[in-house]
Parts: sequence; structure tokens; C-alpha cells
Amino acid sequence: MAKELKELTKRSDNYSQWYNDLVIKADLAEQSAVRGCMVIKPYGYAIWEKMQHQLDSMFKETGHVNAYFPLLIPKSFLSREADHVEGFAKECAVVTHYRLKNDPNGNGVVVDPAARLEEELIIRPTSETIIWNTYKNWIHSYRDLPILCNQWANVMRWEMRTRMFLRTAEFLWQEGHTAHTTKEEALEEAVKMLNVYADFAEKYMAVPVIKGVKSANERFAGAIETFTIEAMMQDGKALQSGTSHFLGQNFAKAFDVKFINKENQLEYVWATSWGVSTRLMGALIMTHSDDNGLVLPPNLAPIQVVIVPIFKSDEQLQQINEVVNPIVDELKSMGISVKYDNADNKRPGFKFAEYELKGVPVRLAIGARDIENGTIEIMRRDTLEKSIGQLQGIASHVKELLKEIQNNIFQKALNHRESMTTTVDTYDEFKVQIEKGGFILAHWDGTPETEEKIKEETKATIRCIPLDGDKTPGKCMVTGKHSAQRVIFARNY
Amino acid sequence: MAKELKELTKRSDNYSQWYNDLVIKADLAEQSAVRGCMVIKPYGYAIWEKMQHQLDSMFKETGHVNAYFPLLIPKSFLSREADHVEGFAKECAVVTHYRLKNDPNGNGVVVDPAARLEEELIIRPTSETIIWNTYKNWIHSYRDLPILCNQWANVMRWEMRTRMFLRTAEFLWQEGHTAHTTKEEALEEAVKMLNVYADFAEKYMAVPVIKGVKSANERFAGAIETFTIEAMMQDGKALQSGTSHFLGQNFAKAFDVKFINKENQLEYVWATSWGVSTRLMGALIMTHSDDNGLVLPPNLAPIQVVIVPIFKSDEQLQQINEVVNPIVDELKSMGISVKYDNADNKRPGFKFAEYELKGVPVRLAIGARDIENGTIEIMRRDTLEKSIGQLQGIASHVKELLKEIQNNIFQKALNHRESMTTTVDTYDEFKVQIEKGGFILAHWDGTPETEEKIKEETKATIRCIPLDGDKTPGKCMVTGKHSAQRVIFARNY
Repeated sequence: MAKELKELTKRSDNYSQWYNDLVIKADLAEQSAVRGCMVIKPYGYAIWEKMQHQLDSMFKETGHVNAYFPLLIPKSFLSREADHVEGFAKECAVVTHYRLKNDPNGNGVVVDPAARLEEELIIRPTSETIIWNTYKNWIHSYRDLPILCNQWANVMRWEMRTRMFLRTAEFLWQEGHTAHTTKEEALEEAVKMLNVYADFAEKYMAVPVIKGVKSANERFAGAIETFTIEAMMQDGKALQSGTSHFLGQNFAKAFDVKFINKENQLEYVWATSWGVSTRLMGALIMTHSDDNGLVLPPNLAPIQVVIVPIFKSDEQLQQINEVVNPIVDELKSMGISVKYDNADNKRPGFKFAEYELKGVPVRLAIGARDIENGTIEIMRRDTLEKSIGQLQGIASHVKELLKEIQNNIFQKALNHRESMTTTVDTYDEFKVQIEKGGFILAHWDGTPETEEKIKEETKATIRCIPLDGDKTPGKCMVTGKHSAQRVIFARNY
Repeated sequence: MAKELKELTKRSDNYSQWYNDLVIKADLAEQSAVRGCMVIKPYGYAIWEKMQHQLDSMFKETGHVNAYFPLLIPKSFLSREADHVEGFAKECAVVTHYRLKNDPNGNGVVVDPAARLEEELIIRPTSETIIWNTYKNWIHSYRDLPILCNQWANVMRWEMRTRMFLRTAEFLWQEGHTAHTTKEEALEEAVKMLNVYADFAEKYMAVPVIKGVKSANERFAGAIETFTIEAMMQDGKALQSGTSHFLGQNFAKAFDVKFINKENQLEYVWATSWGVSTRLMGALIMTHSDDNGLVLPPNLAPIQVVIVPIFKSDEQLQQINEVVNPIVDELKSMGISVKYDNADNKRPGFKFAEYELKGVPVRLAIGARDIENGTIEIMRRDTLEKSIGQLQGIASHVKELLKEIQNNIFQKALNHRESMTTTVDTYDEFKVQIEKGGFILAHWDGTPETEEKIKEETKATIRCIPLDGDKTPGKCMVTGKHSAQRVIFARNY
């Protein structure tokens, strides 16, 4: 699609506007005609597909299978688990009718009042209820367990303030729902999937994350314990990037799902659920990108290498094609996704700007002079550094460079997080520090009241109680009461 | 999941009941708590995933990219194209509210009347309207064309009579939506995708199909021309298995989508759309399966080969494991999906029945005696024939056998279709023949009135006007008027 490459807002001028500009200008997504719902454009979807494929293979390696459950949930199901309905009722899209008819006044179509549903149906905001109602029929004995199902699906939460990828009324996600014979096994599963998410974030997205447990205030509605991975964006705000819930027997009790154990006794089944969504796209964009556009980790870039010829005549182009085609083949044979953009209706400078905007990790440029010299220009997107390489062995060089870029952007994000993580001991210090952004490690007395007070006064929430790191107890910065360990506070998306 | 393997209803006793039994007993799908919506169980979903992967790669090879458009469509969009709204209004699920609240009488949650949408939203029955409303912003000049997008999504059509996979209120599908500068290019695209569908059906599903054009009565609501692939089930009924529509400029006009052509003039854009759905699962099941259960084509079977050890002691099992493990490795290295079921809590006979029910193409069984003799028992699911093979070279033998089974079940289905296709010249003959089932090639005068009369009197519809084969003109069997060529009549799903 021909489009003008206008300048992005600079991050330092307006971080939020920079993000919105980038999502639009890099052709990732756009607002649709339906409030709060986005269109994921082909380039954005290609990145999401790469995420999906990788996650799906990691789920399968850990013994999970995919299935599909209905989009619509009977309203009464939501009410079965008290916390769950409390958490989701306010943002449910409700189907009340199943037919339209011609407007008797001739104005298009209207809802047919005769086609009212006996019980309203909710578009799933998450599927615990419909799935546990289904599992009831699948589970009779311990031999039927564990059940390790995942589904890739769309869900809907009627958010009042939406932002593309970060918070949209409809979003795409995967939701795992597992059923177990024991508490220990369910807890182990919840932690296992947290680790899968953390591995994915760090190794594929190049986004460093902190693994932790949510406080009661931030827990999933219906969970006993919510595990989370928290990432830090460039503006120092936190982004919750994936959660894994230990649901205890809450949903088994709500839907009366029992199994006969090895001792021939009836017990309620233990559960987990876990999910990541297109929100990960937001994390990816906000962690690495710069004022020139997207910066994509090579492991998730739809195009890893672009090659642009610099030519003044068809003859020159012909000559360059002959040199480049074997390089393209060699890169492909190495499993590297490469695009040779030899279209003659755009100038090289325009192409350079476009691929920078789209975050292609490595750009190669080659002209007639290069061919004489046996050289090629190499630009790496992460640092924007240009260098001259040898044509001989360029494919292997690019392969190494892609690895280096993957490591470099992870390390850069990690350094950034570390530089913006502080330890504070007093609430006064905290109030000063929180204005600077970043993660704050502070002591907290463990009560929802104190957490709520801090949130009201500083807009900071507890992102998580970290699983790793310093576990030294102390005194709450607000109340002076006992604190089991420092927790991470931040403002968040 | 432990479950009793009960006998299926026999096809000859009740074909329809056989189908329903099979879907349930082979663990493919089940009815959900929501009327007309099914749960696709892991085994069924694994087959659908294999279909998706193959189709997706065929779409990409033909230049298409994936994207994602909103689930919900503003009601007014549907009305923009007159035929389209006429076709879909009667089966639309309508979202009218976006919030629930606690019932003031304490009975769970109720719809919050204060959260009524200004304009109702429809759960997409298909996405032409929302997509063409989006394309309006993407298309300005001929340089923006063609657009070749596909989306994998769920859709909803509130059907009154539902059957798992064949006709469900919610189903999964893909829908391609393309935009072109010329009529010729759009028509070429529609035919290209018809051919992709036909190739997929025949080479992967092993389901022979007839490519053709729909009569006006059976055309997609909003299309100028609908191309279809039609398959014949074992009971002689037709199943429409995929459609590709040439939409002309209908949606471009409805959504005012114009482009500047090379002559600098504004023109409406030309469109196609094309889709296949989880209905293909129904076609797959009903084409090949038998009274023992599923018969799956090797190209789509989640498990292509199962190996069952026959043992009386742990020592024997140990010995068998040592022989089988390298065979498993060799099969896997050939890209063959293999399961070695050496669980000791089920008898071999139980396992045999289970894998037969689930349609695993090849079963190998091996006992202590076999190891002495260097042999292995081979059972092919399509013919249920058992033979004794040599352990030496068994992997290569299995690989060949899988190809043979793939070809054999296609040929069997083709023979069946041919044996149940008749040519008739009079309406009296037709009425007799249609009771026997199958496809009937007959002359028709090309009018909707005659087609309607035939449908009312015989329940047969025109499945398609075949693109290939005999094009000799003749006289309509009902009216005696001119007929351009024979068309295919059948009763259908």
C-alpha cells in the first residue's frame, strides 16, 4: 500500500502519542468502526502469528492439547462463582436476541422483538465457567485426570478506555484450563506455565520479565493465587504480560465437578487457568522501539532481513540481481526470512525509511560499486549502525548478526529495567521516586488496605511479590508493620 | 479419558444416528450448554488444526496474508447491501447491552438497562460488511490493489436445526476477502481459490469434489456468482464443502470504495470472498468412515500409526520396547506421526477397538513370538485387512502403506460417487431416481421458478452447474425449454 512515511511523534515529546502513531504507521493495527475494537492489519497479524506458533509449540511440548469451547456463555453460569461474576459482570457484552427483521417503517433492519432469548448469553470475557460446565461431563475418576486443554480464541471485555493491543474490547488470546487430582499438581502446573510464559517473553520477545505472585487486590476474579510476569516499558511503567492462576477448587465447587480418587472417595477437582493475549504486541512494541519506528526481535520478525539494491539502470539492476539471488537462496536455506525488494517504483531512501519503521532487524544494501569491491552495506536496526561487509560469507554473517541483535535488545531492555529499579525504605522517598517512573522495591505489610491507600495517593500498584531475589523481611514503609519481603510497586498500563 | 467403547449404530440402520454416535464416541465434539453450539474436543480439534495448517500454507503460497477484523458488526452495516441483509438478518445474534449488574432481588446478575447500546451490534455471520468498511480506508489508488486478506475466525448464524460440524450456530472458518482493479482479476481470484479448495479436498481430505457454479437460488447473499465444490456423502446426499464468491462491485458500492485507476479515473473496486469451515469435518467423517468408527486420510490423521505391544510380563514388555523404540524414532524421522501405546492398564483388544474408532490409518501389533520371528502384525484401517510384515524395513513399508491408504480411500469415494451418479432425461425418471439418492445429471431451463418447483416436489436442489464435463445443450426435463448444459441435482446436507 502506497503511503506517506510521516515522522513519528518523539518518545520524549509524548510517549503515549508515539505509541499510537507507531501502531498506525507501522501498519500493525487500526481502530475499527466498532467502539474499542481494533483491526489487526496483516503486518501486525504476522507478528502475532509468529508468537502463536512459538507459544503453541511450547504448550504442546509441555503436554497440552487444543480444543474449542463456545463463544457464548449463559448468563447464569457467570453467577456461579461469586468472585468471578463480581470481577467480570461490569464489562460483559450481552446477546439478547437472535434475529433481525425489516423495519416496518422501511429504515433497514431492526431487532425482532419476537426473537428474544429466554436467557441472555454473554460473549466470553474468559471461559472458566463454560469450560468447567463441560469438564463436569468429562471427569468421573482420577483416570480422567489431568486434563490439559488450551484454546486460541477471541474474548470480549467492555473496557471504557481502550488502547490498541494494550486494552481493547475484543482481543485475541489463548487460555489454558487444566484439571488435576491434587492441589500440589495444580500449583505445579500454574508455576510451570508461568515459566513457559517467562521463557517465551525473554527468549523470543527479548523482553525481560519479573516472575511473581499478585496481591489479593490484583488477583484474577475466582483465583486462589495469581502468578504473573511483569515487564517494564521504556517510560518506566509496568505491563502485566501474562498470568497463570491457581484456581483451587473454586470452579469445581461452582460447577460440581468431582472425581473418584484412588481410595474410592469423591473429591472436588483442582484447577488452573493461564493466558496471554494480543497485549503482548503492546509489550513488544513499547519495550524495544525507537523514534524511527519498530524494533523487532529477530525471533519474531516476519521479515528478518531485507535487501535493497541501489541502481541507476536496468543493466545495473540485472547485475545486482545476479549477485543477490544466490544470497537470498542461501539465507532461506538457513531458515532466515528474507525479502529482496527490487521494486523500481520507490527510491532506496524511501525503502530504507519504510523498513526501519517496520523494524526489520537487518538491512543489506548493494550497488554497482559494491559488486566491484565485493562488499555490501549492512545496517542493524537495533543500533542503526551501518558497516561494510564482505559479500563472501554474508549469509553466515547475517545469521550471527541476528543472534547478536536478539541478545542485544534483550540486554538493553534488562539494563534499562535495572537502571530504573530502586529500593526505598520510607513512604516519603517512595512518593518522590514514583514520579520518576520505574519499579520500586519496598516493604508492605501485606494488607489490601495499605495497598489501596498507596494506590490512591500515588497511582502505584503492587505489580507482584517477586518469586526470586531478596526475601529479607522488614517493616512496611507506610504502617511500620511486619513485611515478609520487598514487593514491586509501579504505575502500570 | 477412560470410556466404554460402545457399539456404533450401523450406517445401514440409521445413517444419521451413526454420524451423531461417531462424532461423540470418537471424541470429536459434543453439544454444549448453549443451544446449537458445540464443544470441539481435543481429538476433533487436532484434525481441524491439520486442515488449518495445510489450507493456511496453500493460501500463503497463492499470495494471501492473514489479518483480523472485529467480531461485532454495527447493525446498520448489514443493511447497506440489500441481498446480503436479506440473506443473513434472520439468523443474527444481536448484542444490545454491555454490562450486567447485581439483581436488586438477589438472584445473581441481570442485564443493566442503563447499559444499552445506541446501535445494536451483530455477531458476524460473515465479514464482508465490516471488512469493506475497513478497505475503504486502505484503498485510494490502483497501487493499493490487489488486497489479498484472509482471516481465521469464529462466526455465528442462528440456525434452527443444528448438527455437529454440519450446521452449528457458532462455527470456525476462514474467510478470504480480496479487492481488485478489474472484473477479470477478481473472477480469476475466485476461480483460483475454488481450485485451492478442490485440491485440498482431494489431496488431503481424500474427498472427490465437483467444481461448479451455483444457480441464482443457491448463490451467496450479495454475490454475482458463487463457485462451489460439492462432495457426495456415503448416503448419496450432497455436502457443499467450500464456496468462492465473485462479488462484483456490490460491496464496493455499498461502502463507497473507489480507486483511482491508471487513467486517473475513479472506479469502484472489484471483490471476492471465499470460505471453508468446520463443516469440512462433517464431510471428512461422512465420506470415509464405517461401522467400526472413523476412517481418516493419513494426510490429516493426528496419529498416523499406532503401535500396540502384546505382552504377558514386564520382561516381555521390556523386550518389545527395545525393538519398538528404534522403529518409533525411524518413523518420526520420516515425518510420520506415531504413537507407541504401551500403557499396561488396558488390554490390547480394548486398544485395538479404540484406535479403530478413532480412525488411526495403520496399526502395528507386536508380541514376543513376533520378535522371535522378526515379524510384526500390520492392520490397515481403510480395509481392516491384517497382514504379517517383516520387522526389517517396517518403517519404509509403513510410509508406502500410508500413501496407498490415502489413494485408496480417495478412489473408493470416487467410485462410490460415480456409481451413484445417474443421467436422466425425464422428470418422471428423476422423481424415481432421486429417492435412491446420489447425484443426478439433468437438463434444466435455467429459471429459479423451475428449480423451486423441483425442490418443492422432490426436495432436490441444484448443487451446481459443473465447470467440467459434458456441455451439450438439451431440453429442460420439466418445462422442455432450452437447457445450456446438464446440471447436478441432489438432496443435500
